Amino acid sequence: MTDLLWPGDDRAGDLFSDATFLAAMVAVEEAWLDALVGTGIAPAGAAKEDLLGLVWPSHHQWLANESELGGNPAMALVALLRDGLRERNPDAARWLHRGLTSQDVVDTALMVCAREAVDRTLAALREQVRRLAALVEEHRATPMVARTLTQHAVPTTFGLRAAQWLTGVLDAYDDVVGLVLPVQVGGAAGTMAATVELAGDLPDPVGAATGLALELATGLGLAPSTPWHTSRATVTRLGDAAVRCTDAWGRIANDVLTLSRPELGELSEVAGGGSSTMPHKANPVLATLVRRAALTAPQLAATLHLAAAESVDERSAGAWHAEWATLRTLLRRAVVAGEQASELLSGLRVHEDRMRATLEAARDDVRAEQRSMAELAGTAPREEYLGATAAFLEAPLARAAGVLAATPPREETR
Amino acid sequence: MTDLLWPGDDRAGDLFSDATFLAAMVAVEEAWLDALVGTGIAPAGAAKEDLLGLVWPSHHQWLANESELGGNPAMALVALLRDGLRERNPDAARWLHRGLTSQDVVDTALMVCAREAVDRTLAALREQVRRLAALVEEHRATPMVARTLTQHAVPTTFGLRAAQWLTGVLDAYDDVVGLVLPVQVGGAAGTMAATVELAGDLPDPVGAATGLALELATGLGLAPSTPWHTSRATVTRLGDAAVRCTDAWGRIANDVLTLSRPELGELSEVAGGGSSTMPHKANPVLATLVRRAALTAPQLAATLHLAAAESVDERSAGAWHAEWATLRTLLRRAVVAGEQASELLSGLRVHEDRMRATLEAARDDVRAEQRSMAELAGTAPREEYLGATAAFLEAPLARAAGVLAATPPREETR
Amino acid sequence: MTDLLWPGDDRAGDLFSDATFLAAMVAVEEAWLDALVGTGIAPAGAAKEDLLGLVWPSHHQWLANESELGGNPAMALVALLRDGLRERNPDAARWLHRGLTSQDVVDTALMVCAREAVDRTLAALREQVRRLAALVEEHRATPMVARTLTQHAVPTTFGLRAAQWLTGVLDAYDDVVGLVLPVQVGGAAGTMAATVELAGDLPDPVGAATGLALELATGLGLAPSTPWHTSRATVTRLGDAAVRCTDAWGRIANDVLTLSRPELGELSEVAGGGSSTMPHKANPVLATLVRRAALTAPQLAATLHLAAAESVDERSAGAWHAEWATLRTLLRRAVVAGEQASELLSGLRVHEDRMRATLEAARDDVRAEQRSMAELAGTAPREEYLGATAAFLEAPLARAAGVLAATPPREETR
Amino acid sequence: MTDLLWPGDDRAGDLFSDATFLAAMVAVEEAWLDALVGTGIAPAGAAKEDLLGLVWPSHHQWLANESELGGNPAMALVALLRDGLRERNPDAARWLHRGLTSQDVVDTALMVCAREAVDRTLAALREQVRRLAALVEEHRATPMVARTLTQHAVPTTFGLRAAQWLTGVLDAYDDVVGLVLPVQVGGAAGTMAATVELAGDLPDPVGAATGLALELATGLGLAPSTPWHTSRATVTRLGDAAVRCTDAWGRIANDVLTLSRPELGELSEVAGGGSSTMPHKANPVLATLVRRAALTAPQLAATLHLAAAESVDERSAGAWHAEWATLRTLLRRAVVAGEQASELLSGLRVHEDRMRATLEAARDDVRAEQRSMAELAGTAPREEYLGATAAFLEAPLARAAGVLAATPPREETR
Repeated sequence: MTDLLWPGDDRAGDLFSDATFLAAMVAVEEAWLDALVGTGIAPAGAAKEDLLGLVWPSHHQWLANESELGGNPAMALVALLRDGLRERNPDAARWLHRGLTSQDVVDTALMVCAREAVDRTLAALREQVRRLAALVEEHRATPMVARTLTQHAVPTTFGLRAAQWLTGVLDAYDDVVGLVLPVQVGGAAGTMAATVELAGDLPDPVGAATGLALELATGLGLAPSTPWHTSRATVTRLGDAAVRCTDAWGRIANDVLTLSRPELGELSEVAGGGSSTMPHKANPVLATLVRRAALTAPQLAATLHLAAAESVDERSAGAWHAEWATLRTLLRRAVVAGEQASELLSGLRVHEDRMRATLEAARDDVRAEQRSMAELAGTAPREEYLGATAAFLEAPLARAAGVLAATPPREETR
Repeated sequence: MTDLLWPGDDRAGDLFSDATFLAAMVAVEEAWLDALVGTGIAPAGAAKEDLLGLVWPSHHQWLANESELGGNPAMALVALLRDGLRERNPDAARWLHRGLTSQDVVDTALMVCAREAVDRTLAALREQVRRLAALVEEHRATPMVARTLTQHAVPTTFGLRAAQWLTGVLDAYDDVVGLVLPVQVGGAAGTMAATVELAGDLPDPVGAATGLALELATGLGLAPSTPWHTSRATVTRLGDAAVRCTDAWGRIANDVLTLSRPELGELSEVAGGGSSTMPHKANPVLATLVRRAALTAPQLAATLHLAAAESVDERSAGAWHAEWATLRTLLRRAVVAGEQASELLSGLRVHEDRMRATLEAARDDVRAEQRSMAELAGTAPREEYLGATAAFLEAPLARAAGVLAATPPREETR
Repeated sequence: MTDLLWPGDDRAGDLFSDATFLAAMVAVEEAWLDALVGTGIAPAGAAKEDLLGLVWPSHHQWLANESELGGNPAMALVALLRDGLRERNPDAARWLHRGLTSQDVVDTALMVCAREAVDRTLAALREQVRRLAALVEEHRATPMVARTLTQHAVPTTFGLRAAQWLTGVLDAYDDVVGLVLPVQVGGAAGTMAATVELAGDLPDPVGAATGLALELATGLGLAPSTPWHTSRATVTRLGDAAVRCTDAWGRIANDVLTLSRPELGELSEVAGGGSSTMPHKANPVLATLVRRAALTAPQLAATLHLAAAESVDERSAGAWHAEWATLRTLLRRAVVAGEQASELLSGLRVHEDRMRATLEAARDDVRAEQRSMAELAGTAPREEYLGATAAFLEAPLARAAGVLAATPPREETR
Repeated sequence: MTDLLWPGDDRAGDLFSDATFLAAMVAVEEAWLDALVGTGIAPAGAAKEDLLGLVWPSHHQWLANESELGGNPAMALVALLRDGLRERNPDAARWLHRGLTSQDVVDTALMVCAREAVDRTLAALREQVRRLAALVEEHRATPMVARTLTQHAVPTTFGLRAAQWLTGVLDAYDDVVGLVLPVQVGGAAGTMAATVELAGDLPDPVGAATGLALELATGLGLAPSTPWHTSRATVTRLGDAAVRCTDAWGRIANDVLTLSRPELGELSEVAGGGSSTMPHKANPVLATLVRRAALTAPQLAATLHLAAAESVDERSAGAWHAEWATLRTLLRRAVVAGEQASELLSGLRVHEDRMRATLEAARDDVRAEQRSMAELAGTAPREEYLGATAAFLEAPLARAAGVLAATPPREETR
């Protein structure tokens, strides 16, 4: 799975690929069938079937065609699985998918896939936190000129710049780490009526039904939840958190792009990209590709919000369908950009000499404010003019230490 | 301040109006000047000036013109205030704004205005939680047909539908209540160098400077923070939370619009809008206007993300400037839509007879699934087919009770 | 009407202001009433009333309130006008608005306002074409380094750069000049049934009704059209053309922002904006504000498309309502950015010395490609390496001449 | 190439697939090499190489990896081709790509792929024009109730509704048919300096160079153009036209979704989609999938505008890169939605009986306006109240006839 029009896409590997998504849907059906058996609703023989083995590559085109006819890929998959089970295990064929609806399977499979994206994003963010904290420490006292509205302003340190990057990454981390990825089990219209009907002979049919949803969550490593088929904050929060990430990375990329212009020369990528015709060029390729993601992500998240806002009835016609590929693209791009941002930071070259030289050359201008302040205070200008730059490093460094000290939260729960 | 092209806009009153924003900027300058005096940096006589009295309506046009020349409204305001103070209180004129930069004033004033928007939105959400919880209770057992992809599916209750609306509103509430609105104090380029210089004679100039920022936060009822001039999660989280609200309200509006079609007739607004030419019409106007907001909000929030992602240097040229009006429009619309949604819900008429009649007429179809489940289970179909509808009301009702029991969190802190 | 959160907004003056929009709606009602009289449908005495005089500033708040109740501002206006006419001219009171519906009035008034925005945008574009053509001519041979992906590439001329800016502006001009702004006259649901009924005694009632729409178009200086109440390409083309403009200006602004960094210093604005705390700064304010518009416009145009795509029935609930303020904001911003871009270009300083110096310093690198080409061709490198830069100026200059030679097209038709 | 998360995606087949895009890039290199030979710049032996044969499936992963390192897929391809040619045809290896830069290859290949998307979209639009014109003719006199803001308004005909759909499709057709798809040939930075250097021995090197670009256009069936590497109206117009299409189709889909609700029942899809658990359901699947596209397209086009607006220098870092995949996704979805819309229309069932019954039941309400008009006119209400419905069919039918009479414009030119 390569995508020449989104260079670097294959970093995301099989995340949300058709095969991965099929496997996730099959996992949902398997876990549900096992739960039906476990509760005694379905006969014991229906359990523990290797459903994934029933889906062959040669089925993909048929599944794609049928998915269009049905409007989603779950129905076709169920038909395929039933067909494969009919001879081998008629009980499993009969009980497969009973109590579920297509949206349960699609939404839960989306969460299974999203979990991997979230975990990989968290890992990238943690790696960046580590690297940025080191950059902050290393460059606590590296002076450079601060620029506002493209012009020289006052002195600052590269350590403080890195601390701002770090703050952005920590803000994104907080949002991603707080995400909840629930199962969706509601049946035809969010009432679980079919499951309750199937559990009619049990002492507490409703309790049995909701217990099954809990079991499914446990089986798949997702959070339990009442049905959220038309309450889509689950999806929009994923999207917003992904964009919070690309925002943070985009800001870093913009600084790298600006500061690696030859006239500024304060930063550079360890291995710039070449040119097909100009041998001397060393393009800031990683920063370019990261910025690319940051320019496209907000509009994808907006589409997820629109889909949420356009929910209607117990399943909206079109709005729900607009989510799937949008979420996939957004999360894949976040994973790709996250790894590119990590690589960018780990190979970033900081040219302290250029920083110092530019600051020195601009000394008169960037000390002008200091002179007027000293005059106002009736004192002589102090030797340096770095204000609270050192103090401002402490809060982000402390947050970083907290993140790095903690066991990765999601991994604990699995 | 009316806006005929966004009917209902005046519900938001002076929120983020030019006068309100000017007052907020003046409040920032006042609180900062008082803090400078309090710390002993500025002379005692510079404090407690009524700066707002120096800004007259006749200055507005001049301020508007100067704001364009300077690129933001803070510089012009400072010039105006200094001019007004010069004769009356030369110390105040000299010390006004010292240590701050335009972005400090604009960003902090934005947060002051945003706080009002957030508080009003929270009040609307709480009101909706109260009303929706009552609707859920009242209609626990009101049967209606569930619809998926526009078609009849299985039976459900209107109580469960209302519970889903409630879940959306609670999700939005969680995000809004968690927002943090910080002061921004960084000086020219986020280093507080000017303030530290001014505090040069104090024992701990850096501590004095950061203490001033803390004092400003307390004075304005905002959260303390290190400078976030180029880490804009503060702004994007506001935007995302506002859109989470309009998403939740849009979903309610869509249901009302659909169910108040004469052919369905299951819901109606208490007072529909008329027609300029058709006397019989009773249009679902509130739902229409709420949906309008939900269709426009996601793209505004996307713009805030783009501005965040395009941050560069210590103040970005254009990206920062794109935030202000976008945030204002988004938050005003959220306040307006929030009140309209509350009014819509408080006057919502539920036509149980039509719900029952439609469900009864569709009985054969909507019980088809039940028949096949009963056959599968080898049992007779049960009397009803409402599954876990009743059970699914408990979680949102419990969340609602928690929200309503709590003292409104933000009000405590002020 | 000032907007401190969008500095420069007052350049757009009263464009689309509430007063202007009211006046436009009144103009629609007047022209329609006159047309009804002209055709003999309404009695002669109903014509030539000064309706605008009936709307006082003191009515605005009432109109705003009623607009929310009715969902749009037209119904309230009609009630106000009828009330004002009742005593003075009962015939006019009775015949006012007959045959129209609110959407006719709102949509046509939007087009009346849009026409001014379009005309002003065209004037700005023509001014820019003139200025850019002069820049191209002046700098045909001004050498500078071309930059790709932030790095030095090969030599080019500033004339060619200006020619690319010109091409962008000409592309936008082509789209804006091709816009068609039609009246909307359909009555309650786009059938003109009421008007045909009113014309029942005329020999050809349908011909009379459609003739009235034609007359309205003539009277208002708009294009005739069949009803487009649910075919919104009219609106989306306006939005897309506005964004084509801000795209072109944004690209110019980005170049100015980049090239006016002190380390590059090849361009500067004639009067940079100051700083509230740093006396030496000369910020590229116009470029900053133009870029701001370019970052926000695409999402506004996307909202117009969504509204178009969400059309349903004969008048969509919410989608139509989302258009009005969005179109106003987009077109006002285009007008403001257009004038700012014109001013930016007219005051642009081109620092040829810095251009030459940078090119000279980079000579080895930027001639590397030439050396490999010469080697490939088996020739000695030529003296210069400017390729077809001069030739590429001709096409945009010819297009510019065509634009400037033509009488402004829209002005002809009015 | 299937996409289970965008059901129906495989209708677009290999459009813009990696293989197709590679082939398009190879076609650009071939045509350019042939042109170099044709002009006498490159030796005769370098021409007529089957370059596509040098790219094997086993190379794809390597190309993907290298594309990330270089930031775009062209450089890696050139390296691969040179490597493959080195032994077989050293002249071709040496002269391949000379004078071009990566952006030339990528942009031109995008246009080659876009041309197919445009042609297929035009074919779908023409098919829809044909079908809609027939629907208009067939239902000229089929009465139904018009609905505004979800409520019954006045009588109309289904013929007029279909005519409005037709108008939307014709508007989209006008925009798509007017698109110009040019070659991009500028060399390293848009100056064609390398080509001019290579042509140094010819009598008119600049004329030879620009002649080569013309030849390339002819060879690839694209339009000639000066370099547009940083003037991206070419791309945004493609995007806007695609969205104009999805807007038109979305509006049709919304009507179908609404009118196929069982309570309305005026339209239905010939073969509705089934349910995985409810046997009676016939979901309007095609309308659902078309609406899905319409909800996502505007934000993709907005991204193309942002990329255009963020152009800077002679090749922007990130903005250009954001275009490729966005354009692909947008155009593929337009092609898919176009075919789905055609299929939807060709199988649309119009239930005249339900239309008549609803209109008859609402007769009192929907004739209320007529009664007040008749009273105003002092006449008796006429038998029918269909106004100019018949007359309003003529303009769109005439436009449709014009489209269908013309030879498909693009096909002529190839």
